[in-house]
Amino acid sequence: MAERFEIVEKALLAMLEEKKYSTLRDILVTMNPSDVAGLFDGLEEKQIPLLFRLLPKELAAETFVEMDSAAQELLIRGFSDNELKEVLDELYVDDAADLVEEMPANVVKRILKHADPEMRSSINQILRYPDNSAGSIMTTEYVSLRPHMTVEEAILRIRRQGIDKETIYTCYVIEKDRTLTGLVTVKDLLLAEDDEAPIEDIMLRNLIYVTTQTDQEEVARMFSKYNFLALPVVDGENRMVGIVTFDDAMDVMEEEATEDIELMGGMMPSEKPYLKSTPIDLFKNRIPWLLMLMVSATFTGLIITSFEDALAAQVALTAFIPMLMDTGGNSGSQSSVTVIRALSLDELKFRDLGLVLWKELRTAVLCGGVLAAACFGKIWLVDKMLLGNASITLGVSAVVCLTLWITVIVAKSVGCMLPMAAKAVKLDPAVMASPFVTTIVDALSLLVYFMFAKILLHL
Amino acid sequence: MAERFEIVEKALLAMLEEKKYSTLRDILVTMNPSDVAGLFDGLEEKQIPLLFRLLPKELAAETFVEMDSAAQELLIRGFSDNELKEVLDELYVDDAADLVEEMPANVVKRILKHADPEMRSSINQILRYPDNSAGSIMTTEYVSLRPHMTVEEAILRIRRQGIDKETIYTCYVIEKDRTLTGLVTVKDLLLAEDDEAPIEDIMLRNLIYVTTQTDQEEVARMFSKYNFLALPVVDGENRMVGIVTFDDAMDVMEEEATEDIELMGGMMPSEKPYLKSTPIDLFKNRIPWLLMLMVSATFTGLIITSFEDALAAQVALTAFIPMLMDTGGNSGSQSSVTVIRALSLDELKFRDLGLVLWKELRTAVLCGGVLAAACFGKIWLVDKMLLGNASITLGVSAVVCLTLWITVIVAKSVGCMLPMAAKAVKLDPAVMASPFVTTIVDALSLLVYFMFAKILLHL
Repeated sequence: MAERFEIVEKALLAMLEEKKYSTLRDILVTMNPSDVAGLFDGLEEKQIPLLFRLLPKELAAETFVEMDSAAQELLIRGFSDNELKEVLDELYVDDAADLVEEMPANVVKRILKHADPEMRSSINQILRYPDNSAGSIMTTEYVSLRPHMTVEEAILRIRRQGIDKETIYTCYVIEKDRTLTGLVTVKDLLLAEDDEAPIEDIMLRNLIYVTTQTDQEEVARMFSKYNFLALPVVDGENRMVGIVTFDDAMDVMEEEATEDIELMGGMMPSEKPYLKSTPIDLFKNRIPWLLMLMVSATFTGLIITSFEDALAAQVALTAFIPMLMDTGGNSGSQSSVTVIRALSLDELKFRDLGLVLWKELRTAVLCGGVLAAACFGKIWLVDKMLLGNASITLGVSAVVCLTLWITVIVAKSVGCMLPMAAKAVKLDPAVMASPFVTTIVDALSLLVYFMFAKILLHL
Repeated sequence: MAERFEIVEKALLAMLEEKKYSTLRDILVTMNPSDVAGLFDGLEEKQIPLLFRLLPKELAAETFVEMDSAAQELLIRGFSDNELKEVLDELYVDDAADLVEEMPANVVKRILKHADPEMRSSINQILRYPDNSAGSIMTTEYVSLRPHMTVEEAILRIRRQGIDKETIYTCYVIEKDRTLTGLVTVKDLLLAEDDEAPIEDIMLRNLIYVTTQTDQEEVARMFSKYNFLALPVVDGENRMVGIVTFDDAMDVMEEEATEDIELMGGMMPSEKPYLKSTPIDLFKNRIPWLLMLMVSATFTGLIITSFEDALAAQVALTAFIPMLMDTGGNSGSQSSVTVIRALSLDELKFRDLGLVLWKELRTAVLCGGVLAAACFGKIWLVDKMLLGNASITLGVSAVVCLTLWITVIVAKSVGCMLPMAAKAVKLDPAVMASPFVTTIVDALSLLVYFMFAKILLHL
């Protein structure tokens, strides 16, 4: 499917080159706006307005929403006042607010000047809410009904108002003072047996809603839990101010997963897609963590320095340091990653800490035991017998394998507790993933290693 | 919101204890099925059927779908034939197919025996499709229209058929031989100006669809790209066989992100939520990777062993091994995690390899340079002047800092190339994340370290 699509894209771009505009336009109108927007990625700057002007009004606006912000800015700068107004009139309010957020100040000024007054005030309202809140991702356009309307009147109202609402399928029933009291779906209305029944008789009263301040991550989780098409957003006085639709929730889910993954990989989260990020962008997101982790890794160095004599006496011990560090790091990151994801999906709460620790401890005893046994076998079979390493003694292998076992247990305990602790102090648990855990576990495992070496090898 | 909800849960469970069944029932009917299902998590086994039997028929079925499979199995085993039939009759086909997939054989037999013949054949059809294909997550219940119907007839048909369809908002237009030719939304129908217009005049003809064999990850990506409520699924002959709805796509998105994260953390993906996994489950998912990585980490040990003499001559070198390994590992995992996520979101393709490598190289030169400079400063200020470590020489610090720089460059190149290579050979790129990259980078960084030590320190 994807490859077939690339062939179509190439053919369309060729038509643009060859100025076959009317054929091109005939094909464009049959395409999905997302796909049309994709075409613009392959264009040179001066071709962008050319292709855009081929699109009929409605498709143009829908395509505009799906384009990346660089192309949007380029287009707006080239638009006549009239063209700008035409595109703005077709936008949904939440898309317009997104646009305003991403454009530089002088472009924003032009946009607000040409938006109609109602949209301008809605944009301003949405932009006042904190980033990542329900208020900032909602749209103020929805179908509202009144409790005393009949089913027939409600359907008539939807027919009259629906044309420029993002969804008509869930309608909200509000009182005169805009208090939210119920909802009906178009399915309820269409399947209602009595056209004359008042809405208040068929509406769902026990509503699930969010407030303008609810975190967008929480909003996305409610969508995936309840499978709603839209979720109403109310203010502090339970007055309806907007709705969040499922497609925005999907975007949030994707964004939040990406953010978690970036944090887990030891980077500052970025909203730019990879191919649009410059090396400087990437550098800025990555260097703070690398520096911090490098500095903390020097503690491990200090531990080694303070045991230099022990290492000099038993050179074989040095060779096992990387294996112990890596296995500890991997064991710890397994636990931290699992716990972070479970916290993100709301499967875990801080009060489960005891349960989690107990589960991880038992898992660690199992994993550590098997690893230690495998390691013991490997040391004797490979290092001793196959490679004939004379410095391997029973004592050395016992120190290595015992350390391995204890390291895995320590690593998994640290790995599961750090994200839970982060959650408790309202930090993002994803920060406590492999890079961070590895650094701590490295130091701990070396301490255990040298402790065992001192005791068992009398160094 | 979440905490308030826990208080409600406790109050409801107390009512159950105190046998206030009719009050309890009155409250339950106002609740969302997902929340009712959540109540069952807090119950003892013998209370589960008790609470379930309080629910009215439709809510019972909706709640049943949201419960975890252990509770479902318990209920089915306790159901009379009649109760089982009642629940099954209310289920959507895709939920019934999910149920059948998760139950043990004898329960499945009972389910299939009591499902009506039409549902039985639909379940069997869905179960025939490969795991993770569009066919396996679709439902066969959707509203189908014919091209010659009028808008009015179409609305009538929806009113007649809609009651047990998962979505009525997107209707599919099919020919006599079930070939898919178009779609209309309820919005189109409600906003149509002429009730007598034939469907073929208002339907969208250029459809985006998937086949029964399309991978579910691809399906989820199409939802997040196009913002559809539902996506039609056709067979090899373009005959309509079912639809995938947005809520299933959301579940897939969440599942796939979890799977990626688990793989990145060096674990086999698991479908069980964390709190339901036993330590044995966790052990089984984690030990293969740990063993494999432990064994490959021994190569690093071999490298150290073969440079034992160099280390004995310059003991200060050993202390920097953990820092070099960790920084290399972190740099590499930053790149691999970024590339893996971009591949998952379809932002990158294999043909972008050159571009990615060039971007990562420049980023690595920047990151490595800053790290090396910081490291040089730290060695002289802290190790030499503050701690008075006499074994630090200009030569040693030059070896460490040069190695650091090269390691970061090597780590980022390896980190970005491995996932791309995995993609090219149709492996899951997420396998090539931190644990794997770290192991490779460790070995490479030690080789670089000892090479510089040999050259610059003449060891």
